[in-house]
Amino acid sequence: MVPHLTTSLTGPLNELERLVLGKRPEIEHWLRAQFAEHEVPFYASVDLRNAGFKLAPVDTNLFPGGFNNLNPDFWPLCVHAAMSAIQKLCPDAQRFVLVPENHTRNLHYLHNVAVLKRILEGAGLEVRIGSLIPDLPGPTTLETSGGESILLEPLRRSANRVELDGFDPCAVVLNNDLSAGIPPLLQGLEQVVVPPLKAGWSTRRKSQHFAAFNTVAEDFSRLLGIDSWFVNPAFATCGEVNFAEKAGEECLAAAVAQVLDGTRVKYAQYGITEAPFAIVKADAGTYGMGIMTARSPDDVRNLNRKARNKMAVVKEGLEVSQVIIQEGVPTFEQVGEAIAEPVVYMIDQFVVGGFYRVHTERGKDQNLNAPGMEFRPLAFETDCHLPDCTGAPGAPPNRFYTYGVVARLALLAAALEIEALSPEAP
Amino acid sequence: MVPHLTTSLTGPLNELERLVLGKRPEIEHWLRAQFAEHEVPFYASVDLRNAGFKLAPVDTNLFPGGFNNLNPDFWPLCVHAAMSAIQKLCPDAQRFVLVPENHTRNLHYLHNVAVLKRILEGAGLEVRIGSLIPDLPGPTTLETSGGESILLEPLRRSANRVELDGFDPCAVVLNNDLSAGIPPLLQGLEQVVVPPLKAGWSTRRKSQHFAAFNTVAEDFSRLLGIDSWFVNPAFATCGEVNFAEKAGEECLAAAVAQVLDGTRVKYAQYGITEAPFAIVKADAGTYGMGIMTARSPDDVRNLNRKARNKMAVVKEGLEVSQVIIQEGVPTFEQVGEAIAEPVVYMIDQFVVGGFYRVHTERGKDQNLNAPGMEFRPLAFETDCHLPDCTGAPGAPPNRFYTYGVVARLALLAAALEIEALSPEAP
Repeated sequence: MVPHLTTSLTGPLNELERLVLGKRPEIEHWLRAQFAEHEVPFYASVDLRNAGFKLAPVDTNLFPGGFNNLNPDFWPLCVHAAMSAIQKLCPDAQRFVLVPENHTRNLHYLHNVAVLKRILEGAGLEVRIGSLIPDLPGPTTLETSGGESILLEPLRRSANRVELDGFDPCAVVLNNDLSAGIPPLLQGLEQVVVPPLKAGWSTRRKSQHFAAFNTVAEDFSRLLGIDSWFVNPAFATCGEVNFAEKAGEECLAAAVAQVLDGTRVKYAQYGITEAPFAIVKADAGTYGMGIMTARSPDDVRNLNRKARNKMAVVKEGLEVSQVIIQEGVPTFEQVGEAIAEPVVYMIDQFVVGGFYRVHTERGKDQNLNAPGMEFRPLAFETDCHLPDCTGAPGAPPNRFYTYGVVARLALLAAALEIEALSPEAP
Repeated sequence: MVPHLTTSLTGPLNELERLVLGKRPEIEHWLRAQFAEHEVPFYASVDLRNAGFKLAPVDTNLFPGGFNNLNPDFWPLCVHAAMSAIQKLCPDAQRFVLVPENHTRNLHYLHNVAVLKRILEGAGLEVRIGSLIPDLPGPTTLETSGGESILLEPLRRSANRVELDGFDPCAVVLNNDLSAGIPPLLQGLEQVVVPPLKAGWSTRRKSQHFAAFNTVAEDFSRLLGIDSWFVNPAFATCGEVNFAEKAGEECLAAAVAQVLDGTRVKYAQYGITEAPFAIVKADAGTYGMGIMTARSPDDVRNLNRKARNKMAVVKEGLEVSQVIIQEGVPTFEQVGEAIAEPVVYMIDQFVVGGFYRVHTERGKDQNLNAPGMEFRPLAFETDCHLPDCTGAPGAPPNRFYTYGVVARLALLAAALEIEALSPEAP
């Protein structure tokens, strides 16, 4: 099952892919050295945008859901990669407690939890699911969209450890992005917690991620001899925005103008005739809430109440006060009639699969990871590790290898970003 | 494509599988600790025999051919595992020279070389093939059974390095088991050589491997609470045998008697009604030459000239003087009408695939890896890493997980075996 891709491949991306394939040994060698030096996140998913003329990450999730959307043929890759991660992070661990999000009615998310559990079990761990749901009455069996059921058990604190009934885990695997803050239950544990608490959205900022990505993109582009703009979306930030009270609107408008102007310069330089746009989103948080497209500074000046309310809060009621304004990268990929963007999954330093996020109702300059989206996952058919060097640059295996490289740049940026956070989570 | 298995699963093996599945976290934890302590071979293939009542490795190849027989769906697993191996053994390497066997007319072997090259390239290396063929006139293109062609280039020595024309490799990957001895060309190199030269058949002895396996099998069996005999074939050795001159025949007969007697005791203990047999094979060397089945000590006393000649030499004319007498493990697996034995492939500490070696002309108590065999590779459909714990012990994913565990025991034995060899190859 390979998605029918109608990507318009024009000069620059072909050129990027040609360079990436031609310098594969140098790139892999460089990535090996980087990941030997910087602690790679336990897992991550990266949303990419392929504009034909540019291929860039637009979001990096360090608590990825959606493992259920990967081609099951790739699960063994996940198992190998998880084995490698465990060998590095907690070689002595035998029993893991997996802490998911508190969504009990999203059956696809529950399927993701079931798949993650299988992957960790495949790596030879005993795994049980510890829930943070405050009012969970006791062990609760839930059906998932995959047809299996999972058992949620209330996570309990005992001195400096968390435990389940009759189960003392060696390590905690978080699949909960801590948008609601770090629960006291998880603070100051003597058990290993992966990813670390500080990687959650109560401390992470997208702007810090993309600042780290600037460094990574510069180094990578020097290796390839390209303008880093071809893999890097520009961004600006506004620190004091209150959508509900219309505060910070001028900062926002100025930042949008700055990003659009910068994009216009690059478009002119490379003969790109698209209309530039910017994406305004909360600097912390996920799930595609608090996101809008701005094609001019005026677009953020005259927001009606509905738009302001939509921007004001993200998941778990977190209020938006810091905002990132990111260069919009149009997607030129389509699956059938629908706009598509690739999402690449990694465990440890390995690309373990990916799929397309598609949206029939949205344009190529809009965020696809949005509430109400029609979500049709399509697993990549080919993996990201065996480019066919004899094929044309646009042939699927080559495209996916290039996706895997750019996704790993974002993974490396996440490693630098987390490294730079203070050792103790607040 | 899943082979139709007619394995008679009787009590003990079901019991073994049940134990293996039940103690998976303990087993994986123990293997992680072992491979953190002992340098795992770069790659290996292990021939297993599944007798229904016993599952044991009978041969461990540290320069495996046959990667072409793996299910291509598993190639990405190979790539990940190769990345992991390279990160450990030679993280700085970018250019590898792959040194194959000198077989230019075995198109399947050449296909194996092409697949290995793709796997290493997939791991981000620049790979060229350096041949040891003494009279290779120059770069030579050969067709493989896979439909692609490979370029063999004469390997050259330059001071303490090997090189090809215009190619200075950082590391040497051997896919040549050095049956003919260590060529001067490869001695004393400053480049990393994987596997090390001492892992070749000029220094390796099967008896040393199975002595190391005794230790591993004991530790593993203690973990599982079983008699190690269920995973370990007994063996004896004779050091001074000359088949051509009929010397050492009595030692051989005594060793056969010892192995058969020991097997009889175990068979009686566990109520097994099979007739015991022993496999007599050269203590060094491969390719199934110099191998015979002995059902009684008399079988090695009255060899006719033809049988003696067959036993006298193995690959590359290496003379057989040291012999290992191994408990025969009958295979109860069949693919269609043919006798079958599983072969499991590993790179680094990861199981990356496997296939069945089948032989229509041979019995369940004979060696299947023999000259003139009819070889019908059948890729395992399922990988060895995701046992289905809800399935019955005999269900294919569970079977293959158990195969992957026993194969890794042999891999660990190879690690100990190589560790025990003197650091300098002679």
